[in-house]
Amino acid sequence: MDEDILYHLDLGTKTHNLPAMFGDVKFVCVRGSSNRMKAFEDMQDICTGTDRYCMYKTGPVLSINHGMGIPSISIMLHELIKLLYYAKCYDVTIIRIGTSGGIGIEPGSIVITDTAVDSFFKPQFEQIILDTVVTQNTELDKELAEELLKCSKEVPDFPTLIGHTMCTYDFYEGQGRLDGALCSFSNEKKLDYLQRAYKTGIRNIEMESSVFAAMCGLCGLKAAVVCVTLLNRLECDQINLPREVLLEYQQHPQKLISIFIKKRLGRYNPK
Amino acid sequence: MDEDILYHLDLGTKTHNLPAMFGDVKFVCVRGSSNRMKAFEDMQDICTGTDRYCMYKTGPVLSINHGMGIPSISIMLHELIKLLYYAKCYDVTIIRIGTSGGIGIEPGSIVITDTAVDSFFKPQFEQIILDTVVTQNTELDKELAEELLKCSKEVPDFPTLIGHTMCTYDFYEGQGRLDGALCSFSNEKKLDYLQRAYKTGIRNIEMESSVFAAMCGLCGLKAAVVCVTLLNRLECDQINLPREVLLEYQQHPQKLISIFIKKRLGRYNPK
Repeated sequence: MDEDILYHLDLGTKTHNLPAMFGDVKFVCVRGSSNRMKAFEDMQDICTGTDRYCMYKTGPVLSINHGMGIPSISIMLHELIKLLYYAKCYDVTIIRIGTSGGIGIEPGSIVITDTAVDSFFKPQFEQIILDTVVTQNTELDKELAEELLKCSKEVPDFPTLIGHTMCTYDFYEGQGRLDGALCSFSNEKKLDYLQRAYKTGIRNIEMESSVFAAMCGLCGLKAAVVCVTLLNRLECDQINLPREVLLEYQQHPQKLISIFIKKRLGRYNPK
Repeated sequence: MDEDILYHLDLGTKTHNLPAMFGDVKFVCVRGSSNRMKAFEDMQDICTGTDRYCMYKTGPVLSINHGMGIPSISIMLHELIKLLYYAKCYDVTIIRIGTSGGIGIEPGSIVITDTAVDSFFKPQFEQIILDTVVTQNTELDKELAEELLKCSKEVPDFPTLIGHTMCTYDFYEGQGRLDGALCSFSNEKKLDYLQRAYKTGIRNIEMESSVFAAMCGLCGLKAAVVCVTLLNRLECDQINLPREVLLEYQQHPQKLISIFIKKRLGRYNPK
């Protein structure tokens, strides 16, 4: 192509010098919400001409939000991966930092995902390409997960564990919630489902990890998913934490990733 | 439930007087992007405590953005439908105003959806509930579509038609684009797929209509999907319109809906 327009990022190969802007990127942090991102880094948004996504850069660390759900994060990943390619970046580590519902673990815990699984507990992502269903691998980088778990020893305030993460297309019925506008099953069916999920090693549920693992795997990016749990789904469906607790929980994965990046850059000074 | 927290809207039945705030709502306009919404109505965002969604109200018209993709719009719809229920709203018409890729029609045209179809051209939405796949109906309100088509005669600047809309989970490979970070098929396969789609009556492709049609249908809301097409996918994959043309095209469905609402309210004065 003569020119490639990264439409949803409002960037392009002719309008922007991508190697100069992004060539030194070594870490990409992706998050659902843009507010949470601004709280993390007080910077100028790079994607100024669109409100689809926001992007901030601090030295070798690029932060982008991805909205909610598989389709939204997949659009961002396609354009981000093209951006990293055009910018001639190499040795890039990409981490999704998010919130999730926990299963059988204490709210505020962090789950580092080893494998993303679908609603049927299968370690795969089904991608529809033209009218064919293609099954993709959803394993994440094992060494990176272990390195992150090691970093978590530096933050004793909250438990961190490695486990499977279930990735769904729906927040309500698709995650066994009884409190949506529609609900077609009983509390017993819900608990049976979540307990079966727990038995297969699933420790949290969110909505982006499977396509994230699949695409990063196919494109050779070392990837991790690090999510805090906001509730224990065996106990409730509603997120009714006081705002200050919610904000504090959302800081947990950011604290961990901050230590990880500082260690990698040789700039970590434990207090 | 004693209290229902509409988490992603930052509203709740105990913290907000929903009947007083929303009881008079008769029209809900839903859009992907919040910027486009602000351009339409210069108002105070109601969902102040979250950046997941923005919401604006002008008399009986409520506007909300839904992000990109089926999961993102479905979270919003669950919470919006609960909100309308708690606020005791009745006779509500809900319209998704969006952008899309056209098939075999001139860019800038408006497609009013009669039925949303999936990637296999089937008029259905497959919802995963616990570990069961449930098939839901995706037909939209026929009378409302005809009423909107009639309103389009008042705006002769751009062609408007009724057709099927294909709803996909992915913007790149899932819509037969060759320009994503990954592509596993040829231009011939792409064109064959899009031409077969055209032959079944599909005139545009977007990423939210199927779950929107299914949920609104199940909850008894009269619903329409009105999208402008930004390109003809039989000719290209990239959205490379000059910014002013893009902004003008995005106004097309808004102009149509504005006439529709004014007519319904008996306030339409053709110039």
